[in-house]
Amino acid sequence: MLGNFTYCNPTKLYFGKDALDGLNEELPKYGKNVLLVYGGGSIKKNGIYDKVVAILKANDKNVYEDAGVMPNPTSDKLKEGIERAKSAKADLILAVGGGSVCDYAKAVSVSVNCNDDAWDKYFIRFEDVTCDIIPVGCVLTMVGTGSEMNGGSVITNHAQKLKIGHVFGENVFPKFSILNPEFTYTLPKYQMVSGIYDIMSHILEQYFSGEDDNTSDYIMEGLLRSLIHSANIAVKNPTDYEARSNIMWIATWALNTLVAKGKTTDWEVHMLGQAVGAHTDATHGMTLAAVSMPYYRYIMPYGIKKFARYAVNVWGVNPDGKTEQQTAEQGLAAMESWMKSIGLVMNITELGATEDMLDGITESTLIMDGGYKVLDKSEIRAIYKKSL
Amino acid sequence: MLGNFTYCNPTKLYFGKDALDGLNEELPKYGKNVLLVYGGGSIKKNGIYDKVVAILKANDKNVYEDAGVMPNPTSDKLKEGIERAKSAKADLILAVGGGSVCDYAKAVSVSVNCNDDAWDKYFIRFEDVTCDIIPVGCVLTMVGTGSEMNGGSVITNHAQKLKIGHVFGENVFPKFSILNPEFTYTLPKYQMVSGIYDIMSHILEQYFSGEDDNTSDYIMEGLLRSLIHSANIAVKNPTDYEARSNIMWIATWALNTLVAKGKTTDWEVHMLGQAVGAHTDATHGMTLAAVSMPYYRYIMPYGIKKFARYAVNVWGVNPDGKTEQQTAEQGLAAMESWMKSIGLVMNITELGATEDMLDGITESTLIMDGGYKVLDKSEIRAIYKKSL
Repeated sequence: MLGNFTYCNPTKLYFGKDALDGLNEELPKYGKNVLLVYGGGSIKKNGIYDKVVAILKANDKNVYEDAGVMPNPTSDKLKEGIERAKSAKADLILAVGGGSVCDYAKAVSVSVNCNDDAWDKYFIRFEDVTCDIIPVGCVLTMVGTGSEMNGGSVITNHAQKLKIGHVFGENVFPKFSILNPEFTYTLPKYQMVSGIYDIMSHILEQYFSGEDDNTSDYIMEGLLRSLIHSANIAVKNPTDYEARSNIMWIATWALNTLVAKGKTTDWEVHMLGQAVGAHTDATHGMTLAAVSMPYYRYIMPYGIKKFARYAVNVWGVNPDGKTEQQTAEQGLAAMESWMKSIGLVMNITELGATEDMLDGITESTLIMDGGYKVLDKSEIRAIYKKSL
Repeated sequence: MLGNFTYCNPTKLYFGKDALDGLNEELPKYGKNVLLVYGGGSIKKNGIYDKVVAILKANDKNVYEDAGVMPNPTSDKLKEGIERAKSAKADLILAVGGGSVCDYAKAVSVSVNCNDDAWDKYFIRFEDVTCDIIPVGCVLTMVGTGSEMNGGSVITNHAQKLKIGHVFGENVFPKFSILNPEFTYTLPKYQMVSGIYDIMSHILEQYFSGEDDNTSDYIMEGLLRSLIHSANIAVKNPTDYEARSNIMWIATWALNTLVAKGKTTDWEVHMLGQAVGAHTDATHGMTLAAVSMPYYRYIMPYGIKKFARYAVNVWGVNPDGKTEQQTAEQGLAAMESWMKSIGLVMNITELGATEDMLDGITESTLIMDGGYKVLDKSEIRAIYKKSL
């Protein structure tokens, strides 16, 4: 646990089959005007919308709507959301959906009282929020991003071909989140599997950093083993409650700041995946999966000890009689084989990327410096080439 | 993650060598009157007292003192603390010490505005707190109890021969805690080792419960492996910063409600140990160590699958060619051998208990029902007999 750090995560979580009842405890804490934010309308088909609105009405709230939040929320949509929140005089923004909806709700919440161009201020200049924030609550219907218990928000600007994530401070974290694993049952398998890999990638981005051997690494090994175990059950039986509930819980703890403590953290896989996403609009988790194996095989020599430990402690590789490199390679092979077995997309071609797009994708890829190897643009392009 | 639950832990942690600087961020949030609570005066010898008082003065606080909190704080001392907090008109109670001091500060904080006998109301009748609470902050100098980030408070009533823990809600959690691993360096080795086993016991009390296979179990296996790893380093070199910082961090996460999610949790070892403590005033962690092996060997058949998993995932026992029972027994043997190697007290005789005290100790032992076997009083007495 080297270094100085602070930890504070005030988000209240309501978890389980009756989690939505938590709304009745939370709503009285806020004013009358609630901006209900959601996506393409799947919550109207599966009945969650009706349940939420009934609870809002029973708590005597004025319900304003901001629908149509897309999987990769755009800066244009953000502008629309700001106007809606302003005209509703929203006292609470209630996001009902997955990570994109929750990310978007946070972006709106910090922008309403910000007199500058919020995209420019928060997502380009990465400034801290100093203006008043509208509190956000989440009803989660899709897992993966951890957005329900952190300050993360990813917004895409199509004109600039940029998909940028900003991590806001604890004042922007959702005040509460409702986590009912059953709400995730109706999600198509492609989205479920994509979310599972998003979770795994969040853990690996933090795990593969630093030479130290701290408690965060041990916690992450536990989370990874639990995730692999439950993912194997969920892909066979998507309505296995225990498996889906574990996956939901792991997603939250993979990215609520805890396991980053004492770690430098990498996030280059996310930069690679997000650049692919900005050019193809492909599903986030799948973009991460499609670039991961070429990336990890490339950086493995620079963090060989950790990759060998990963092989043994997460994938059960027996290191007896093997070199560190052989152990590490066997771990990555086990990971690749598992990724294929659960149905992840293993190349960016399948996501719509073509060779002639690589220069542009490379150009818009941010370079991170917390992992085992700081890449240059030619290395990034080579990784994309191998990902085709 | 079976069942419905809520999770909320608002305590802000300042961690690391500069953690005390966090006081300057926290103190302005509270009124002028600070009740400084501490123990036997070791903080005056090691300089922590002077540092804390200097920061309080620099923040223009009126400092009132309540010293002499004993290792097992008593209901008599609690009455004294209530009077001191009242006469100081305390706006903040700042606990500087280990778990006992922090536990005591919480007991005072909930009792000052409680017009009943607080011992009777909270520690006998286990009522929720409805009166105004004085906020508590902690500067931790000894690790083990997790009191710095939870609502736990253990108070001993000598007249009634009762040592009782109450777990208060999140409103009673410390508002902030200062965790500087270097502050734990001057602790005698006996206390350090006792704290390490207290941490381990907290994890095991939660791990050895339920037939389910949830994420909490995986996180706990990670915490246990990290604890064993760092304890082995710390007993050889008590000023190894990385080891001591990991132990401090694990202690916090072992008992801040996270790993209990989805578990029934046992706590019978704590009931056994606390009864020994109430009759001998022995160090808490040592009382737990002294009764653990007879307890776990007795309940092992009732949770055999989990004990076998524990052997493999925590102690690295190779299960090939062994029955579940053989694997489980080998795990407990590895645990026992490790406990001896770090210097834990392995019997209650060494702690001052004698055979003629066993009836009384048995009498005051509470029976819990969340573990693999609900004990009756004759079973409890038999476990104490084996612990002599």
